[in-house]
Amino acid sequence: MKIKAVKGTRDYLPKEVALREYIERTIMSVYKENGFQRIMTPTIEDIENLDKSDGGENLNLIFKILKRGEKLNNALSAQKYDELSDMGLRYDLTLPLTRYFSAGRQSLTYPFKCIQIDRVYRAERPQKGRLREFMQCDIDIIGDKCISCEIELITVTAKALSMIDIGDFTIRVNDRQLLNSLLSWAGFEDNQLASVCISFDKLDKIGAEGVISELTDKGFSEAAIKNFSEILSRENLSLADISEITGKPELTKNISKVIADSTALSEGKYDIVFDISLVRGQGYYTGTVFEVMSNKFKGAVAGGGRYDNLIGKFTGENIAACGFSIGFERIFSILCDLNRTADDKKRIAVIYDDDFITAYRQAEELRTEYNVAIYQRPKKMKSFLDKLSAGGFYGFYVIGRDSEIEIQTFSSPTKP
Amino acid sequence: MKIKAVKGTRDYLPKEVALREYIERTIMSVYKENGFQRIMTPTIEDIENLDKSDGGENLNLIFKILKRGEKLNNALSAQKYDELSDMGLRYDLTLPLTRYFSAGRQSLTYPFKCIQIDRVYRAERPQKGRLREFMQCDIDIIGDKCISCEIELITVTAKALSMIDIGDFTIRVNDRQLLNSLLSWAGFEDNQLASVCISFDKLDKIGAEGVISELTDKGFSEAAIKNFSEILSRENLSLADISEITGKPELTKNISKVIADSTALSEGKYDIVFDISLVRGQGYYTGTVFEVMSNKFKGAVAGGGRYDNLIGKFTGENIAACGFSIGFERIFSILCDLNRTADDKKRIAVIYDDDFITAYRQAEELRTEYNVAIYQRPKKMKSFLDKLSAGGFYGFYVIGRDSEIEIQTFSSPTKP
Repeated sequence: MKIKAVKGTRDYLPKEVALREYIERTIMSVYKENGFQRIMTPTIEDIENLDKSDGGENLNLIFKILKRGEKLNNALSAQKYDELSDMGLRYDLTLPLTRYFSAGRQSLTYPFKCIQIDRVYRAERPQKGRLREFMQCDIDIIGDKCISCEIELITVTAKALSMIDIGDFTIRVNDRQLLNSLLSWAGFEDNQLASVCISFDKLDKIGAEGVISELTDKGFSEAAIKNFSEILSRENLSLADISEITGKPELTKNISKVIADSTALSEGKYDIVFDISLVRGQGYYTGTVFEVMSNKFKGAVAGGGRYDNLIGKFTGENIAACGFSIGFERIFSILCDLNRTADDKKRIAVIYDDDFITAYRQAEELRTEYNVAIYQRPKKMKSFLDKLSAGGFYGFYVIGRDSEIEIQTFSSPTKP
Repeated sequence: MKIKAVKGTRDYLPKEVALREYIERTIMSVYKENGFQRIMTPTIEDIENLDKSDGGENLNLIFKILKRGEKLNNALSAQKYDELSDMGLRYDLTLPLTRYFSAGRQSLTYPFKCIQIDRVYRAERPQKGRLREFMQCDIDIIGDKCISCEIELITVTAKALSMIDIGDFTIRVNDRQLLNSLLSWAGFEDNQLASVCISFDKLDKIGAEGVISELTDKGFSEAAIKNFSEILSRENLSLADISEITGKPELTKNISKVIADSTALSEGKYDIVFDISLVRGQGYYTGTVFEVMSNKFKGAVAGGGRYDNLIGKFTGENIAACGFSIGFERIFSILCDLNRTADDKKRIAVIYDDDFITAYRQAEELRTEYNVAIYQRPKKMKSFLDKLSAGGFYGFYVIGRDSEIEIQTFSSPTKP
């Protein structure tokens, strides 16, 4: 038997589970308080839904489930090797949400404000150290074009992150339409914009020179690249600058209001800044995009944006949507680095010699204040207590040794 | 796009999710209070671990995950059709627990008292109406031979079920060793006992005649079947009866104490009864087996037992284990039938015309008491309010209409 979890997945120790539960519980309580409602969908989706979805690179990372019985035999004997699978594991929570919303729309409050905190799967190459099974943690507002969605999603996500206390953070925002107008002004063709964005998205990793060299390799117009590189060379390109450059001040109106109103609601606890270089990978974003950066820890801790065409693409109707996703695994890894622990109640051990019933009854009395585990006195008491202490127990109580219940804590001198 | 969840899986509406969360939260709090600790393992397991495991019929129900890239191509081009899969979805939580315990034993408190509440997958034929993705909800004590485990598991599980309030229930207990001694006494050979148990397990479904006819079909000794059928004909076969029949009173000692002590701790809230006809399907049980029957609703709501050889089979060491599993989906279905709802806080809507910031700030004030969702005033107010009411909202508040915050509840006359 292979005793390790399969590559790219993890077993979690009790104290890690407690920390993950704390993160989920905290985020969930903020989201629910703000009127979002949790939905749940299966981790398994129809393989055609997955294959035809708008997942970009993720479509290459789908775990496919083998057909069974006669259907499998038929596909194999006909050597139809692209028909071996009928289902797959979901690679994100957006596709299931789209399907869910289409199926259940009649019975849902509209606009629909929902929470999804659940597992997703991607067949990443394990040597990259990426998880193949991980948690995503999304809120979405479906059916509302108004930018109050952006303001609400930013404010609520920031509130959740503040509650978890991962330290100071900054929220970067941009608008895809604004970015596109700037790229058009520079001279790129409409059908080149997506490709330019993919290169521009790498700015953090490969720098301005890298982006420009990639655009050159892609064979785009020299004049456009030159204009674009001039923009890149300016530091802190403001909304006013872009208005002036493109001559389209109306395109900065929405994002200005998102920033102003989100800032008003932030009560000075975090900054919301405009950043023209923020792209966000997914191809489906149509308007505002946003990202939360920890001021202390590298990388984004949350990201999202408006994706007004995605749901309509599947349902045939034009349905607006906007979402924000907290990087659950990133948060977990930060809290692990900070050595944060999160047990709801202190845990103690009640140790007895031979009378389990008495032990149980005394444990019950202690359970108003503690989580209480009952153990029979082991042969090696000293090493057992060391194990309890290492396992996060707060203390222990030995039945019958003292006339009164007296808990020995592991931080105080023990008398085993 | 197929908008329904794949066969045998389900989407859950917000109110259903709230109910499922309530069940999970309630069980989890009882288990934790009693010193059990939650662990988590991946839903994906190595295919060899699954295939070689002790899952009986479930081994035919494994969802297998297709290999990817070169490894898949190699298997296909060599027509090695039994090597198409490298991983599979777990069919229960016992195999992952075994693997987890083997891998992490050094850092775990021993005996190890753990909780697992998580999804499992079985490729059941969907026409049976069975779920292919469902929750299991287990507590286990690993590394303790003492029957205090049985007493604790019974008492804690009963406490959790009482907290959820599914109505009165009765706990049936039996002992596999006792049952085997009775079958041996009847005249069955040692190597026939497992097969006799499989038939005997169907007593509820096919009756005594059915069991006897099945045993006859299996070609077992007529004399043994005759002795066995005499036992079956006796009503309420007691432990004393069995002692007398088999002449081995020592085999009734453990189970008598389990029943007596569990009854002492039950405080008269539920009955614990001996039932020689309780088998429990799984082949891996070695001693006590138990099952919780709702007095009002059909079928078992929880089941478990001692399985001292299972973990050792994989680890090579002899490790005792005992577990109890609550039928999460059965409980969910009972609570749905009872029309139980379970929102932690009342949910209200704050409705505004154009000033989102003011709406957000007023909602914040209400959030100490309510979960508050903010909506912009819709064109059709009446039908919107009907939707809120149907969606489980408690009431609403329209910004700016009244000088004071006054919540209109849906149970009182509304003035939209």
